[in-house]
Order: sequence, then structure tokens, then C-alpha cells
Amino acid sequence: MMRALICTIGDEILIGQVVDTNSSNISRALNALGMRVTGMVSVGDEREAIYSALERGLAGNEVVIVTGGLGPTKDDITKGVLAELSGSSRFVENDSQLAIIRKILAARGIDTLERNRLQASVPDNCEVIPNRLGTAPVMVFRFGEDSRFGHKCALYSMPGVPFEVTGALPDVTEDIRTHFGMAEICHRTIMTYGMAESALADRIAEWEDSLPPQMHLAYLPDPIKGVRLRLSIYGGDRTRNTLLMDESISRLRGILGDTIYSEDDDTLQNTVGRLLKEKGRTLSVAESCTGGFLSSLLTSVPGASEYYLGSVTSYAVSVKKEVLGVPEEIIAGHGVVSSECAAAMAEGIRRLTGSDYAVSTTGLAGPGNGPDGQPAGLVWIGICSAKRTETVKVVFRNDRIRNIERFSASALDLLRKFILSD
Amino acid sequence: MMRALICTIGDEILIGQVVDTNSSNISRALNALGMRVTGMVSVGDEREAIYSALERGLAGNEVVIVTGGLGPTKDDITKGVLAELSGSSRFVENDSQLAIIRKILAARGIDTLERNRLQASVPDNCEVIPNRLGTAPVMVFRFGEDSRFGHKCALYSMPGVPFEVTGALPDVTEDIRTHFGMAEICHRTIMTYGMAESALADRIAEWEDSLPPQMHLAYLPDPIKGVRLRLSIYGGDRTRNTLLMDESISRLRGILGDTIYSEDDDTLQNTVGRLLKEKGRTLSVAESCTGGFLSSLLTSVPGASEYYLGSVTSYAVSVKKEVLGVPEEIIAGHGVVSSECAAAMAEGIRRLTGSDYAVSTTGLAGPGNGPDGQPAGLVWIGICSAKRTETVKVVFRNDRIRNIERFSASALDLLRKFILSD
Repeated sequence: MMRALICTIGDEILIGQVVDTNSSNISRALNALGMRVTGMVSVGDEREAIYSALERGLAGNEVVIVTGGLGPTKDDITKGVLAELSGSSRFVENDSQLAIIRKILAARGIDTLERNRLQASVPDNCEVIPNRLGTAPVMVFRFGEDSRFGHKCALYSMPGVPFEVTGALPDVTEDIRTHFGMAEICHRTIMTYGMAESALADRIAEWEDSLPPQMHLAYLPDPIKGVRLRLSIYGGDRTRNTLLMDESISRLRGILGDTIYSEDDDTLQNTVGRLLKEKGRTLSVAESCTGGFLSSLLTSVPGASEYYLGSVTSYAVSVKKEVLGVPEEIIAGHGVVSSECAAAMAEGIRRLTGSDYAVSTTGLAGPGNGPDGQPAGLVWIGICSAKRTETVKVVFRNDRIRNIERFSASALDLLRKFILSD
Repeated sequence: MMRALICTIGDEILIGQVVDTNSSNISRALNALGMRVTGMVSVGDEREAIYSALERGLAGNEVVIVTGGLGPTKDDITKGVLAELSGSSRFVENDSQLAIIRKILAARGIDTLERNRLQASVPDNCEVIPNRLGTAPVMVFRFGEDSRFGHKCALYSMPGVPFEVTGALPDVTEDIRTHFGMAEICHRTIMTYGMAESALADRIAEWEDSLPPQMHLAYLPDPIKGVRLRLSIYGGDRTRNTLLMDESISRLRGILGDTIYSEDDDTLQNTVGRLLKEKGRTLSVAESCTGGFLSSLLTSVPGASEYYLGSVTSYAVSVKKEVLGVPEEIIAGHGVVSSECAAAMAEGIRRLTGSDYAVSTTGLAGPGNGPDGQPAGLVWIGICSAKRTETVKVVFRNDRIRNIERFSASALDLLRKFILSD
């Protein structure tokens, strides 16, 4: 199996100012090609560290992908190191990338300065894959069996800006595919929500032990996605692998039922969106402690406007009463963090917008306990249609952000089950 | 300066299923101690890769922090590798961690199974720092000058779950501080919003060239935070460093004015929250294309309920009209993506909630153009008080998620300037 190393460059990564999302993005793309990522390394904007990481990477892998350090400012040194590493002694200006640079900056109303123009200059021994989304081009350096690395390998230099990486990845993977022959890898990720990792592991232990030897299972817990079960087969015959996968997943479905919400690595928000579209139904949201996050999850799905009408974030009690119509007696009698309030909020937003379904959240994300002494990490979730209302209490004791994420995911999962049972 | 390597373990990282946030979190903590992170490495759940990364790390650094692979399932192998690496031949059960395990699982209504109990077993030659937030303890392995690494060094094994890392970091850094003596590092991060990186670089080029030689500047662009300027001094006298920093920042303030929104690495939402609290004012939000994200940013700040009343996400036109009171004539005459609609939405939510200030967003996040053929990546932002209303058009052509982030950040920055000019 072909091996790859991913190297991300940037002082800002090493001092923890930015989270490296490029590595996981690139890795998923390489995996889809059937490559195995042997490691990921982050180094600073420093010649020696970059040089040795890339040298070691090319010695031990067929592909090295390096991102970062290609910007227009003083601390961007990658290009010089690559020239040294590949033995280039001269730079040439790439016309395609220069044209893109001018166009991008003009669209932002900015002149092309000298420091921007220099981004179009590349070592003379590389191939350029123009980057349409940004100013730094993708550069490909190829080495043969006779190189000092002793085997055929290639280095791909990509910009460090995440959405530019996403945009350039299809071209990079296509180049890898044509330059090297790739065996496919078969992944299926089963999404579950509602069971803790260890309880899930026990429930499916027999099934896990009976998996074919070439199939590998990994548990991937995630605060918003739940526990993902990733099945993988490396190499082998594609048709046979698909059959093995389908058979294993079919047996798993029999054990886990609707704890599984997707068999295709999908998200809860996509799953809910698809259900609503299939049934031609609409949805609105009334949220309090989740503060907009639940609505934001739903609207992160392109095309959400086909089924999502909108929401009210009723952070203040006054907004719960005056906009959602939650009766004073409920707030006085049961408090805002209650089954009754969750029901009233869901029914209120449904009436206000005329949606088919509505979901509400009211709780305490923390830090600090509620006014009645209730501990943080508690939410009441309300779901309603024209015909019925359900409320569920969910407890999850974490920090504020994790609680908000978990409350929102639970709301999506409960809404999913409510719609399925309708 | 003391050196550290951060090693994150997990197949899920290498195949790109999860983004490694632990490395940046740990790095920030080590930086605050005055340590230099020389690299970050991610490896799979595989003995050879883990062993060699940690061995190499300890050879070249004083501190190695390794996360992951300590869970209760079959693919968690870190502990065995650490026993091998440190020369331990026997495991002992740690009572403190076992008590924590029982307590955590009981609170979730789960029994302590054998696989959970085993998480409290550790190699007999390590020190345990109990992990109060999760089931896997933090283990500390110490090596002296006479060890095969040739210098005094230590390895800290932390759980892989991000919020547990956050919880355990203070104990880990305290242990590092007492075990090794640390010189301080001085960082100041100046937050700017509204200018592109290269234009900013040109505006401050003279100031940058005149910085004291021991001061280092890095540009850190971020879609939500803007362009951050990080000034750093490593080592030296603390008082003198503080003076140098203050003086440099003071001169920068003279050049950039209110393009700077924070001189303390703060966020736009924190900055806006602080302003509102200082003035005793309240805020509400009406958002359309940002879908809840703007509200979610504001409520991610603990204590936001002191000034934030809530929001309406008016995704459907009907909700803009019926809940926010946007007149039909405006929608028919100017469309929903217009200055007039943004103004009406802001004024509508302000009236509805009775807040002092209100901000609105209406635009096209993409993908795909608007019904009138307007290209995606355009938003009208409205800000109003009882006395005046302003609208601003912002153009930013990226993917949906980036556009939503940028629209929301722009709304926060414009609101900030509106409040400051009140």
C-alpha cells in the first residue's frame, strides 16, 4: 500500500494559535485513493525543521504533502527550502498563477503588489497546478528511483489556507492517481447516537469478534456526531469487499436498530434534513441554552431553506414570554428549565411560524448552576407536531461549549426519532 | 530554551476522521510556560510508530506530551508501549483513578465493567496525576541524565478526549514547572479586523522593520478573528520585555486605530460583550443567511445573558414578515438581500425584544446564486439603536461555511464600531 506523510508548516500551528485542520482534510482525500497516511508532522517556519521533515518523509513514503509557508510576508520560507531540497537553482514566473493573483486581488479591490507577484514565482524544476482560490500555486516535485530517496516519490506543496486546500485537493489527488497506480480502500462509517462508547462496545462485542479478518473496526466518539463505527478493508477485490461490508453492516443493523442514524458517515443535521425533504415537511426551532447553535447546525446544510423556516433564540425570559408565548404560570410554577417550559416553547414556535415540526431546548449549559440550584449540564428538549408533544431530559456534565454541542445533537437525534415514528 | 514535542495517537487522526485540536491546546499551555514546541507528530494506533516517535521525541526534547490510545476498546495500545519504552514489567491499580472511574460511570447510570476498571491500571514506574473529567489517568514517566536519552526529560501521557486534555493541562504544566525550571515567554496578540493580510503588512511595514531585534512578529489570519498580529519575546527580563511590548503596541495603535479591536488575544464576541456590559446595554439579533451562527457566537461567551436578549433566525420570507414585521413593500420592491431589508430586520427585532441595540444579517452564503441572480458571498448587515440605523454591504466569496463565519464576524465588528461611536 502506498504511503504518505503530511507535513504542515507554520509557527502559528506550533504555538497553538491555529488548529491544523488541513491534515485531516488531506488525509481523508488520500485515504479515498487507497493510500495509508503513516504520520502527520507539524513544524515551524524554520529551514532546518522543514528540510529534515520533508527529507525524512520522502525517504519513507511515496507521497509527501506539505502545506503552509507560502504567503506574502517575511515569515513564509517554504519555497526556498523546496528549491534547496529539489536542487533547483532558479525561479520562473508562472503566468497562470499570476493571472489568478491579479484577478483575486482585483475582486477584493486591492492592487497586485510586488510581494503578491512574487507568489507566482516557482522553482524551475517543479510542475505547477494553478490554485484558483488563492494566491499561492500548488507545486509538484517529482523524484525517480535514481534519486537520493531510492524510490519513486513526489512532493506536493499546497497553500496553508484551509478552503484553498479543499479546492486544490481534487487536482492533487488526480495527479497522484495518474502518476502512481492506486489500489482502492473500502471504508464505511456507521453513525450511532445515544449509547456511550463502552456500552456500545459490549453490545456489539460478538459481532466485532466475528468480523472477517481483513476487516478492521475503529470506534470514533464525537460530541456532535455520536459514536462512529468505522469499518475498513485495505486492498483486495472491490466487489467482494462491498459484499463483505454490506453483510457485516446488515448484521449490525439487526443488533443496534435505530441507534444507527446513518450508514454513510453522514451527520445528524443532514439526516434530519433528508427526512424532512422526503416527507415534504417544515421545521422551526426555539432554543435557549443552546443559544443559536442548534439553528446553526441545521442551516449548515446546503438547501436547508427547503424545509427550515427559522428559529427564535429566547435567551431572556421576556423573549420566552412575549415572542414564544410561554405562559407566566408555567415559568412561575415550574421554572424555565422544565418539561412544561420546553413543551410550551416548542408549541409556541410552531404556532408562530406555521411549521409542521418544532424542537426546543431549555437548560443550563454552564458554567455555574441555575437560579434554583440545579447543576449545569442539564437540558429539557421539546419536540412537537400539530398532533403531539414530547419532552425529554438529557444530562451531560461537561464544559459550556461541549454541553451546548451535546444538547443540540441530542435534540437532532430525538427529532429524528420523533419524525420516524410519525 | 526548553523543548517539547507533542505526539497525538490515533488511527482516527491519520485517516482524517477527527481534527487534532489537542496539539494546539497543549502547545498554548507549554508556550505560556516558556517552552518551545519543536514539532507535533500524529501517529496511528501502532506499536512501532508510537515507540519510535516517542523515543525520537525524548532524545531531542526535554518534554514529550503524548495523547490518545488510552480508551477501553481493543485499538487502545498506548499504555503497553509506554511500559515497554520506560522499562516497566508490571502494572498496578491506581485507587484514585478507579474511584473517579466508578463515580463518572455511576453519574451516567453505567456500571463499571472490566474494560473500564483496567483503565485504572498503570505501569509501576510512573506517577499518576488523576484525571477528574474522564476515565484514563495522566501518567508521568521521568528519565534522568543517566538514561539512554542522555539528558533529564519527562513524558506525559494524557487522554485523547479534548475537554479532558483541557482539564488536565493545569496539573501537567504545574508538574513541568516544578520538575524543570522555566524562563518565561512574553506573547501579546493584537487583534485586527477589516484589512487583508498583505495590505496590513504594507501599512505596518515601517513599524515592523523598527521592532527591537529580540521581538518577533507573526501574521495569523483567521476567518472569524481577522488578522492577528503576534508579538513574541523569548527569555530575557520580564519587566523590560513588558516595557518593550507596551511601547511597540502603543506605536502600532497610532498607525492602525480602531482596526485593532483587542490587544489581548481576545475575540470579537468577547469584545462586544464587554462593551455592552460596561455600558449596561442589551442586544438582540435578526439573522437570515448566517442561520444562527451569529447568535451562537454571542452566546458562546459565559455570562452573555447579562446583555443578550435573544434572536430570530428568519430563514423563510414568511418569518421575516410575520415575526420581524418586515413590510411586504420592501421585500417586493428591494428583495430580501437589500439595505432596506437589513434595516427593517434590525429595527424589527429591536422593537420585538426591547433591546438597546440590534444587528441583522441578510444575504447569500451560497452555494449557488440568489433568485435575482446575485452571486453568492454577499451580505447586508444592519445595526440600529433607538436613534439611528446603519447598513453595510460586505462581499466575501468563499464556501458556505466560510461566508457564514465571515458575515458573522463582520457583523460583530461593525456592531462594535457602532457602539463605540454612540
